[in-house]
Amino acid sequence: MTRPTPLAEFRFDPDGGDDYIDVRFVALEIARLLGEGDTRAVAEFLESQEIADVAAYLEELDTERGMQAMRLLPLHDQAEVIGYLRPASQLTVAQQMGRRELARLMGAMSHDERADLFKQLDEDVQEAILPALSQAEREDLRRLAAWDEATVGSVMTSDYATLRAEMTSSEALEALRGQALDAETIYTAYIVDEGRRLTGVVSLRDLLVARPRQKVAEVMDREPVYVRAEAEQEEAARIIARYDLIALPVLDAEDRLVGIVTADDAMDVAAEEVTEDFYKGSTVGPIETSVKDATIAMLYKARIYWLVLLVFGNIFSGAGIAAFEDTIAAHLSLLFFLPLLIASGGNAGTQSATLMVRALATGDVRPVDFGKLLAREGVIALALGLTMAVAVAGIGVWRGGPEIALVVALAMVSIVVMGALIGMSLPFIFARLDRDPAAASGPLVTSLADVLGVLMYFGIATVLLDI
Amino acid sequence: MTRPTPLAEFRFDPDGGDDYIDVRFVALEIARLLGEGDTRAVAEFLESQEIADVAAYLEELDTERGMQAMRLLPLHDQAEVIGYLRPASQLTVAQQMGRRELARLMGAMSHDERADLFKQLDEDVQEAILPALSQAEREDLRRLAAWDEATVGSVMTSDYATLRAEMTSSEALEALRGQALDAETIYTAYIVDEGRRLTGVVSLRDLLVARPRQKVAEVMDREPVYVRAEAEQEEAARIIARYDLIALPVLDAEDRLVGIVTADDAMDVAAEEVTEDFYKGSTVGPIETSVKDATIAMLYKARIYWLVLLVFGNIFSGAGIAAFEDTIAAHLSLLFFLPLLIASGGNAGTQSATLMVRALATGDVRPVDFGKLLAREGVIALALGLTMAVAVAGIGVWRGGPEIALVVALAMVSIVVMGALIGMSLPFIFARLDRDPAAASGPLVTSLADVLGVLMYFGIATVLLDI
Repeated sequence: MTRPTPLAEFRFDPDGGDDYIDVRFVALEIARLLGEGDTRAVAEFLESQEIADVAAYLEELDTERGMQAMRLLPLHDQAEVIGYLRPASQLTVAQQMGRRELARLMGAMSHDERADLFKQLDEDVQEAILPALSQAEREDLRRLAAWDEATVGSVMTSDYATLRAEMTSSEALEALRGQALDAETIYTAYIVDEGRRLTGVVSLRDLLVARPRQKVAEVMDREPVYVRAEAEQEEAARIIARYDLIALPVLDAEDRLVGIVTADDAMDVAAEEVTEDFYKGSTVGPIETSVKDATIAMLYKARIYWLVLLVFGNIFSGAGIAAFEDTIAAHLSLLFFLPLLIASGGNAGTQSATLMVRALATGDVRPVDFGKLLAREGVIALALGLTMAVAVAGIGVWRGGPEIALVVALAMVSIVVMGALIGMSLPFIFARLDRDPAAASGPLVTSLADVLGVLMYFGIATVLLDI
Repeated sequence: MTRPTPLAEFRFDPDGGDDYIDVRFVALEIARLLGEGDTRAVAEFLESQEIADVAAYLEELDTERGMQAMRLLPLHDQAEVIGYLRPASQLTVAQQMGRRELARLMGAMSHDERADLFKQLDEDVQEAILPALSQAEREDLRRLAAWDEATVGSVMTSDYATLRAEMTSSEALEALRGQALDAETIYTAYIVDEGRRLTGVVSLRDLLVARPRQKVAEVMDREPVYVRAEAEQEEAARIIARYDLIALPVLDAEDRLVGIVTADDAMDVAAEEVTEDFYKGSTVGPIETSVKDATIAMLYKARIYWLVLLVFGNIFSGAGIAAFEDTIAAHLSLLFFLPLLIASGGNAGTQSATLMVRALATGDVRPVDFGKLLAREGVIALALGLTMAVAVAGIGVWRGGPEIALVVALAMVSIVVMGALIGMSLPFIFARLDRDPAAASGPLVTSLADVLGVLMYFGIATVLLDI
């Protein structure tokens, strides 16, 4: 198969299978062309591609080729591309650049991404960069970088479009035209008074529809939805999703407009929160970086705490078994059903917990719904338990006779109902205690269900088998 | 506490605690005012509120009051509000309305929401509604409603803004002004040829920045990102997130533009996919509706399959124990450590599986990374296992003497490493088999780790205790 001008013709096919094969192929082609000195072909190709895809190619190249390719882009594209790179790669780019080149690049970056990159730099690099920036850039950087991780302030950007209330809509359109290249979005514009207090928000759609002489003050929304800079970043994501916003204004404690959170940044925040919830749901603690970039020590630290804690929790199950040693010694065949019974309680409980954790997270279910849902869960769990009891009763007869079968069936129903009710209640209890319901994890539910399962199984056996 | 004009002053406070208390309060006030016949106060209040909040109030009212309040809104707001209601409530509204009123409302709704509502209606209602709609509406409805659930076609909308390539930018702005009220978004506009084939996409930003005489053809993106209508809906969400788009054009198999997917609809699709992944991760099958609205039968059906399957899986653990009855009978104290050891394997495995499922879902990790990650996981698991072995060795000495302690410690290390490697591999194996990695769930990993854990523990005990 010959590919005469492969790169020039290359285009991502959204129907195509594995994107990664494409990315690898393109990266190899870029490296080859750079090796042959054909920088024009590479520059032309990169310019024809979406910025996010360019970033993917750069990630696949080695540092030298990556820098070479990146420098073929116009400054504005470089500034956009760097925002799509992984944090580790951003740092590599910054380290490869001279102070002046880096300052020029940072001058062209969007304000939030610039602040994020700045925070990653070593202190001496930070100090070397600052004098090369304009005063406005320096101050903006200091302000944005000052917000704590996980606050709205840390994800907002300050390059929003502003208008004055007394402008006519045609003046406003002209003003937005002037801000279009620098602002993160011009589809929503913000109206502030002399004290920078937010007095209104107007969409470009409403400005376009308004009569040319109509004042901004007449078409703007005077009571816009907003969020506080010190609020948790998830709050911004939740508000944007609730009201289907393109961008959300951010106010400081004195009602001054200090930034906006855009919908695409909100999507990233929401994705991070989902990842955190998945982790919590399996007792993995927070990891500062991506799983791929995480060190062994980071992952060890994120995992060991709950693993050891659960070991001690499971000692109770062991103690439960030890307490029934006589019963077990008399009927060793009971042991055959032990894993199956206690696992069933944990499995049913994990299901219930997941259903509730997710419903609470999406707002589908509220803490006040607990009573009604618990009753429903009881009925469902009973139905599940009975079905599973029927499934094991046959095996019970075969392995240990009708008496054992009765014990196992009774234990199954009780254990499944118990597991399901624990799994369903735990997220609500956590919410009540102002803890994240997502921490009502599968392993935690399973451990609790294990302890009670052991006691219920051998308790029922001791009574019914007359020991 | 007196509240003279409570509703008129009411405003959601994004800093405030439980939104739901506010919603309940407002709904009660609305009901009271409607009871007193003060419809003007209610109408004024509702008009001052965000549409999403109005929907939340309506959800809290009984059917009669809810319909009364809804009818106070102008038609355009009614059409927007209904899109924010839960599907069950949408149906109630439709059932309460006469055919003519419903047809008028549906005429004002955005095309995708109209199609979704239409699909919910009974066939006889559908047929009664159709003649009351315009021919264009009828055809649009039939086309949108024809797409299978879960395809891009089922989430796209057909009310997008179109331009012609030969327009000047100022003509284009004028054209968008005319489409602003009906189109879902005018921030991205689509250029099609006579055959409705997509030839370009242009942003309102670029049109605004262009010289007034510049042709659309000169500023439009001629190779826009797109998606096929028959692709899975998640594909659209992934592309929108990857390229930070406001809307994504949807093409049919003949490259004709048939709709767009907007970013906010993509967020909803992404949230649904996350919910599905959470469910899969705890062996809960898909549920057609929200957890709150789900019937007992639906939830039973979604849960029973895997629960029973796992019961049979756990029979192997029981058989494993039964195979070592002699060892157990000789050393009943071994049983004390059984729950703790097998739970540890499952817990470590659940952690690994979750880390990999999420990393594969976000694209942080790719199938080709498997080898490298497996090696790293081995090292981490060994460190985790050794820590946990130290934690249980002391208890081992206390409960059964140094020999038992050695067995337990060795078993712990082996079982944790085994569990972690299974948990880490399963998502990759599923991906290889073209199944969703998310199905490599905690309960499945735990069951596998249980079986092997039993064999490893008693195997080690049998060898070391010389039985």
